Amino acid sequence: MTLQIGVIGVGMIGQDHIRRLTTVLAGASVVAVSDVSAEQARDVAARIGAKAYATGEELIASADVQAVIVTSWGPTHAQYVLAAIQAGKPCFCEKPLAETEADCLAILDAETAFGRRLVQLGFMRRFDAQYRAMKQTVESGAIGAPLIFQSGHRNPSVPGYYTANNALTDTAVHDIDIARFLLDDEPAAISVKSPRKNSRGGGLADPLLTLIEMRSGALVSIETSVNIAYAYDIRGEIVGETGVVTLAERNDVVVKANGVFSGRVPADWRERFVSAFDEEFRQWIAAAGAGGATGPSAWDGYVATVTSATGVKAMANSSREIIALRERPSLYRTA
Amino acid sequence: MTLQIGVIGVGMIGQDHIRRLTTVLAGASVVAVSDVSAEQARDVAARIGAKAYATGEELIASADVQAVIVTSWGPTHAQYVLAAIQAGKPCFCEKPLAETEADCLAILDAETAFGRRLVQLGFMRRFDAQYRAMKQTVESGAIGAPLIFQSGHRNPSVPGYYTANNALTDTAVHDIDIARFLLDDEPAAISVKSPRKNSRGGGLADPLLTLIEMRSGALVSIETSVNIAYAYDIRGEIVGETGVVTLAERNDVVVKANGVFSGRVPADWRERFVSAFDEEFRQWIAAAGAGGATGPSAWDGYVATVTSATGVKAMANSSREIIALRERPSLYRTA
Amino acid sequence: MTLQIGVIGVGMIGQDHIRRLTTVLAGASVVAVSDVSAEQARDVAARIGAKAYATGEELIASADVQAVIVTSWGPTHAQYVLAAIQAGKPCFCEKPLAETEADCLAILDAETAFGRRLVQLGFMRRFDAQYRAMKQTVESGAIGAPLIFQSGHRNPSVPGYYTANNALTDTAVHDIDIARFLLDDEPAAISVKSPRKNSRGGGLADPLLTLIEMRSGALVSIETSVNIAYAYDIRGEIVGETGVVTLAERNDVVVKANGVFSGRVPADWRERFVSAFDEEFRQWIAAAGAGGATGPSAWDGYVATVTSATGVKAMANSSREIIALRERPSLYRTA
Amino acid sequence: MTLQIGVIGVGMIGQDHIRRLTTVLAGASVVAVSDVSAEQARDVAARIGAKAYATGEELIASADVQAVIVTSWGPTHAQYVLAAIQAGKPCFCEKPLAETEADCLAILDAETAFGRRLVQLGFMRRFDAQYRAMKQTVESGAIGAPLIFQSGHRNPSVPGYYTANNALTDTAVHDIDIARFLLDDEPAAISVKSPRKNSRGGGLADPLLTLIEMRSGALVSIETSVNIAYAYDIRGEIVGETGVVTLAERNDVVVKANGVFSGRVPADWRERFVSAFDEEFRQWIAAAGAGGATGPSAWDGYVATVTSATGVKAMANSSREIIALRERPSLYRTA
Repeated sequence: MTLQIGVIGVGMIGQDHIRRLTTVLAGASVVAVSDVSAEQARDVAARIGAKAYATGEELIASADVQAVIVTSWGPTHAQYVLAAIQAGKPCFCEKPLAETEADCLAILDAETAFGRRLVQLGFMRRFDAQYRAMKQTVESGAIGAPLIFQSGHRNPSVPGYYTANNALTDTAVHDIDIARFLLDDEPAAISVKSPRKNSRGGGLADPLLTLIEMRSGALVSIETSVNIAYAYDIRGEIVGETGVVTLAERNDVVVKANGVFSGRVPADWRERFVSAFDEEFRQWIAAAGAGGATGPSAWDGYVATVTSATGVKAMANSSREIIALRERPSLYRTA
Repeated sequence: MTLQIGVIGVGMIGQDHIRRLTTVLAGASVVAVSDVSAEQARDVAARIGAKAYATGEELIASADVQAVIVTSWGPTHAQYVLAAIQAGKPCFCEKPLAETEADCLAILDAETAFGRRLVQLGFMRRFDAQYRAMKQTVESGAIGAPLIFQSGHRNPSVPGYYTANNALTDTAVHDIDIARFLLDDEPAAISVKSPRKNSRGGGLADPLLTLIEMRSGALVSIETSVNIAYAYDIRGEIVGETGVVTLAERNDVVVKANGVFSGRVPADWRERFVSAFDEEFRQWIAAAGAGGATGPSAWDGYVATVTSATGVKAMANSSREIIALRERPSLYRTA
Repeated sequence: MTLQIGVIGVGMIGQDHIRRLTTVLAGASVVAVSDVSAEQARDVAARIGAKAYATGEELIASADVQAVIVTSWGPTHAQYVLAAIQAGKPCFCEKPLAETEADCLAILDAETAFGRRLVQLGFMRRFDAQYRAMKQTVESGAIGAPLIFQSGHRNPSVPGYYTANNALTDTAVHDIDIARFLLDDEPAAISVKSPRKNSRGGGLADPLLTLIEMRSGALVSIETSVNIAYAYDIRGEIVGETGVVTLAERNDVVVKANGVFSGRVPADWRERFVSAFDEEFRQWIAAAGAGGATGPSAWDGYVATVTSATGVKAMANSSREIIALRERPSLYRTA
Repeated sequence: MTLQIGVIGVGMIGQDHIRRLTTVLAGASVVAVSDVSAEQARDVAARIGAKAYATGEELIASADVQAVIVTSWGPTHAQYVLAAIQAGKPCFCEKPLAETEADCLAILDAETAFGRRLVQLGFMRRFDAQYRAMKQTVESGAIGAPLIFQSGHRNPSVPGYYTANNALTDTAVHDIDIARFLLDDEPAAISVKSPRKNSRGGGLADPLLTLIEMRSGALVSIETSVNIAYAYDIRGEIVGETGVVTLAERNDVVVKANGVFSGRVPADWRERFVSAFDEEFRQWIAAAGAGGATGPSAWDGYVATVTSATGVKAMANSSREIIALRERPSLYRTA
């Protein structure tokens, strides 16, 4: 009953997933690892009693491996996901699904040819209790049809190699995905506003306000502030026809001292989304154990890649760009 | 020591100001009224023991009148404000200062020629304790330089004659003014997004998302939702370089019953801004009693009129329009 | 139409009331003052253009004075209130109504003999919007019958002469009155718990937890913390059969910076209750102008004095003491 | 590396723990069960692939069982805990440790004789993130020395056989334990106030206000309301010398509709403490795997039993009762 997992790419994220799968959650066992650094693969394998493979492809092919996690460098995602599909093995892939639209389409084609979902994308927000409550509220009709979704994505700081394009492809991509999830809608056009720059960002175009027009006409406004120092803060509000729903502030305690009340804001994404990651993998273990996947699909990964890439173009040209998507294959039409 | 006031235009707003000046606040007496309806002027005058005048100009000219309040129909504001300036009498004018840029400029010229401020515009938000605390926070440096201001302006419903242009000239104009106040900045360009329409609005382009680029580069995003049913709700958040400041939710009590906690949201602008109106007139009585004005000036009225008119053009053309302002006269340069 | 008021006792509180009546509220004029310090009376009178009287009795007798405010030293309240009743003049008296039960009863007898209410006690909480919303909630049935009221009364510090008895007679007396108001009930028995002392209080028995059993059986628990440093904080929650109602935290803005969200707590009672004081006097001016009084009555002052005095005894004896009240005269039976 | 666990008593709680250990958490395997109903033991065993034992004693003795969970009927706890100690096996025991003081003392003696902790009590609140943050706040000195802890424990309803004694021994016992944890203090005296009864409780003395004087002098005030209908609500506030710390309200989203803002309150203890239970067993699995225990000890179970039993006496006699505790053995002196 224990799912035997191979992990391709054992950097920071890969090791964190291994920790979660081996020490936190029931039902999983990490039996295989590989990495671009053979040494790192061997070290991690030794620590957890797994076997190190020379390549991701060999790991995927191993009879010991029932399901695959892809946490390697972004440009290599597509090849491993395709190999997993060809092997008919369930595959959890961190974003991006692939860095080019062509690779995304190849994956959609392969999975469609296979005939059922094998791929799950690492958009953990879809497993967050707050976003799920937000979606339930919209679906309950309590606020009427959704008209505007305002999302705020704030990081205390980003590394020096981070560019304004990353704000779309790495940061806002989460807001893009959750907007589609919350509104049950697809993006149609995108534009990007670049206000006065945060002086802490060393010239980086930060913050950005990204505007996405959805097919229904609903508008998504995404504020990304990636050098805002104070904390990791995820905000969201949906304005409907008769009401609004807002992500609540959550805190353990409120302290009153020295003339003020106060409470903590999460320090980083790990703290903010720890329960979402747990839930994401709990559901994946169950789905992969049954030979499939659940939650965000390859289709969701494809739309995220195309939308953020179109956003990069819109930012470069200070233009409003149409987002051109393939028709959604029937495999991805069920909720 | 009691300021003797004449009120031009005694419709709903005018009468509410009279009520406040005669039954709530110290230091004022309403001695004169006029109205386009002579009968209504006589009725109100009789009720409060004031004298009814046939025209606003006669009221302004009366020796009994020390200060003037203009709450007549918008298109008539300019003529009365100009008359008050010519008479050298302090004048409180509800928005708009004037409906055309030309009339606004004439008022600026007249007041500048007079040599000191006589005109105060009815942008009551500047006297609201929450906005003042927000401005203090920005000025304290607690959040670093302000980069984005997100404003939400929600009305439960609007009358049938209300048009999408009103959403800019009557509704968002308050957000435009408070943005300038909070950021200590002037608008440079404007564009307007019109998402999916609220089905409650009978075809009205509602909600709108108005984007204003300020001279500093700071970005202002104004959501106007004027048929949102649930309540009158004013939201605001400033994103700075190192933190954010948000208008707090205010409520008298929280009730827990039937599985939920809950509290009231204000029903209308009167409830939301009752203390701001009190403070606005308290400060105006003092300033007018000393022969002048305080708070929002004719300059602020001029910028509001030009900005919202430029927004109307931007919305009509789906374009980004530059906001062209006269150079600020020195009379309006002090804080 | 302006109420001509005489103020007996022009110390800090008296002067604050004078400021409110002359510069904030409509409809009142302070024409007379007196004080135990003739010099202070003259100074204040000169400043506001009133007449200084040698004694409170002379002030009350003056034909110029239509209504009286008693803000003198506590032990002198009874004599002035009685004199005002004998003169048939409306009288606003700060707590206590009188320091002894006998004096309270003399006032009840005098007012009853006069035949209608002239006396209003300075329990300003009854005019606070939050407490009024709390009472409305109870009366609406939203939480079922009230069973427990938990009140918290926190002062940053108290002066050196303040004793544990003051915590009952000066501090908790406000909670006692508001408990009666909220629960529409009378106190039946009282006991006082004295926990570990706050080391900031120089040996003062602080905090205290005072428990009052009401006639209905509802229980009132009052925490008084009078050296708690952080702010002036008034808390309250009513536990009913099916729900609870809690005084909301109110704040102008929330700031997020340095890893925390935060907001101010009021610094002192003036800040916390400024609107309640305004409303208290607004309603008193109207009621006194009509020859009477509104809100908290001499009966409320009597019950407050008896209850807090019984609490002093309970604390001294570590006992539970029965609160013996006269039967409520019909004059005080209407809401 | 997987801990092999035997569960004694597979009623509702026992089965919930089994579910958690087998489907949620890593590192544990349930290999043995027993129950007073042999049939129920066989059914559960069959479902999870464990072995059913005729008695708890046989289960404990089995070489397959490395650690024991006692979730049988309260009066049987002591015998199984003693058997586990005698077998030198780690033992998780739901409250109560034992129903009599004598049995508690026998367990303390046995564990002390064994020489290290084997027993962990099921006071899950100690693993709740909110309470841990509260304790951290106290320990940080942010509010000064703690003086009063006010705890609120509210259940929507209780079954018909529930008595007022249960409000102490089953309900307030959690507040008693968490008070000791938060204040790092022991109870010295107890009294119980029984206000007006909730009419929903069919004559049950509900709510209760239990007052506990701690050895330091700090006061604990526990409100238990066990028929309050609206939700399961756990409140807590510690009043210190210079500040207060309060359990925050936590909610996923806030909805504004129909004139109010609102959000959910947990429906029951499972929802409120789901993460605390996860954490409790995660830590127990680790500690038991190392042959010991962590968190609440047999000593904590002993103090809880004695304190709530003394509370029952205080309630019956309307008296203040001294809580007589054995001296704390050194085994239980480390944090």
